[in-house]
Amino acid sequence: MTATQDLTALYAEVQHFHARQMQLMDRRDFEAFAATFTEDGEFSHTPGQLARTRAGIVAELREFHRRFDDDPVVRRHWFDMLVVDPQQDGSLRATFYALVVDTRPGAGSRLGPSCLVTDVLVRVDGALLNRSRQVRQDRLLLAP
Amino acid sequence: MTATQDLTALYAEVQHFHARQMQLMDRRDFEAFAATFTEDGEFSHTPGQLARTRAGIVAELREFHRRFDDDPVVRRHWFDMLVVDPQQDGSLRATFYALVVDTRPGAGSRLGPSCLVTDVLVRVDGALLNRSRQVRQDRLLLAP
Amino acid sequence: MTATQDLTALYAEVQHFHARQMQLMDRRDFEAFAATFTEDGEFSHTPGQLARTRAGIVAELREFHRRFDDDPVVRRHWFDMLVVDPQQDGSLRATFYALVVDTRPGAGSRLGPSCLVTDVLVRVDGALLNRSRQVRQDRLLLAP
Repeated sequence: MTATQDLTALYAEVQHFHARQMQLMDRRDFEAFAATFTEDGEFSHTPGQLARTRAGIVAELREFHRRFDDDPVVRRHWFDMLVVDPQQDGSLRATFYALVVDTRPGAGSRLGPSCLVTDVLVRVDGALLNRSRQVRQDRLLLAP
Repeated sequence: MTATQDLTALYAEVQHFHARQMQLMDRRDFEAFAATFTEDGEFSHTPGQLARTRAGIVAELREFHRRFDDDPVVRRHWFDMLVVDPQQDGSLRATFYALVVDTRPGAGSRLGPSCLVTDVLVRVDGALLNRSRQVRQDRLLLAP
Repeated sequence: MTATQDLTALYAEVQHFHARQMQLMDRRDFEAFAATFTEDGEFSHTPGQLARTRAGIVAELREFHRRFDDDPVVRRHWFDMLVVDPQQDGSLRATFYALVVDTRPGAGSRLGPSCLVTDVLVRVDGALLNRSRQVRQDRLLLAP
C-alpha cells in the first residue's frame, strides 16, 4: 500500500475506534470506556480537571455522572471533522469536533456544548488506545 | 489485505452505502430507498411497526410521509458513531446514531428525535443491502 | 486493489480532505482554506454569489465574516452523508449535507441552516483540491 492508502485505512480505523469507544461511554459502561485508554492514559474534559490511569478515569466519570442521578437523560456523543496526523514517535494525533445530543423525558433532543477534542492515540498489541484526550468547549474560546 | 485492512475498507463502504441510501430517502425516492433492502427486507422505525418486502417498505414510507402533505419540510437524516461487526453467517451488524434535521418555511433548522439504529447488511451480487433495519428512539429508553 | 477497494480508500480520503479544509475555515485561516481550491476554483455559498480564484475566495470570506466583527461566535462546520461519484473526466463529484454549529457568549450551541453541498474535486500533484463548491440552503427548496 502507498502512504496515502495507509493513511486512509488508518482514518477509517480511528473513526471505528471512536464509534465503539463512545457507544460504551453513552451506555455508561465506564470500565469498558476506560479500557480504550492506555493504563497510564490521561483524560481531561474540563480545563483544570485531569483524570489519570484507567481507574482514575472510571472514578472521574462516575463522579461526573452523579449529576444525572435525579435527571434522567440519554446522552449521545457525536464526532465529526476528524483530522489524523501521524507523529514522529509513531503515535497519532487526532483532532475533531464533538457534540452531545441529550434526550430527556417529555422534551425533544437538544444539543450540548460544541467542543474541539485532541486525542493522542497509540497502538498496543495491534489495537488503538488513547494515551490522552483533551476536550475544550468552544465557549471557552470566547472572551468573557 | 489483513483482516484489519479488510474491516476498514468495509467500514468506509458501509458509510458510503448509508449516505447514498439516506439521500434517496430524504429526496423521497422511496422506490430507490426500498431497493437498498433485500427483496424480503424488514424495516421498523417505531416499536410495534414492521414493514416487510420492498413493496411493503414503499407503502409504509408513503403512509408515513402523508403527515407532511400540509407541512412543507426538508428532512435530512444524519448518522454518526457507526460500529460494524461482521457476523458468523457472513452478514454485517451495523449499530449507529441517527438524527433528523428538519427545515420548515420561516424557521431555522431543528433536530428531530435522537435514535439508535441497528442494521443487518448482506452482500448481494457484490453490493450491500439491508436485510433489516431497526430504529429505536432514545426517548423510549427513559422510564415514563 | 479492486475498484471497490479503490473507492473506499478514496472515500476516507475525501472525508479527511473535508475535515482539514473545514478546520481551516472554522479557525478563519481563509488563505489556507482557499489553498484547498484550484487556482481557478469556484465557491458559491449563496444563490447568485460566486467567488472565483483563490484570491477571490479569500476576499469573499473576509467580506462574509465582517458580520461577525461585533458578534463574537465560534463556528463549526459539520458534514455528513457524503456520496462520492467518480466522473468520466477523472474528477470526483461529492455530494453531502452540511450544518454550522454556532457558539456565542452566554448561549448554548445552536444549529445554523441545513445545506446540501456539491463539490467537484480534482487531484493536483497527488492531492485533492476543490475545482468548485456549491452550497444550497435547504430553506430555498421550500416554496415561498
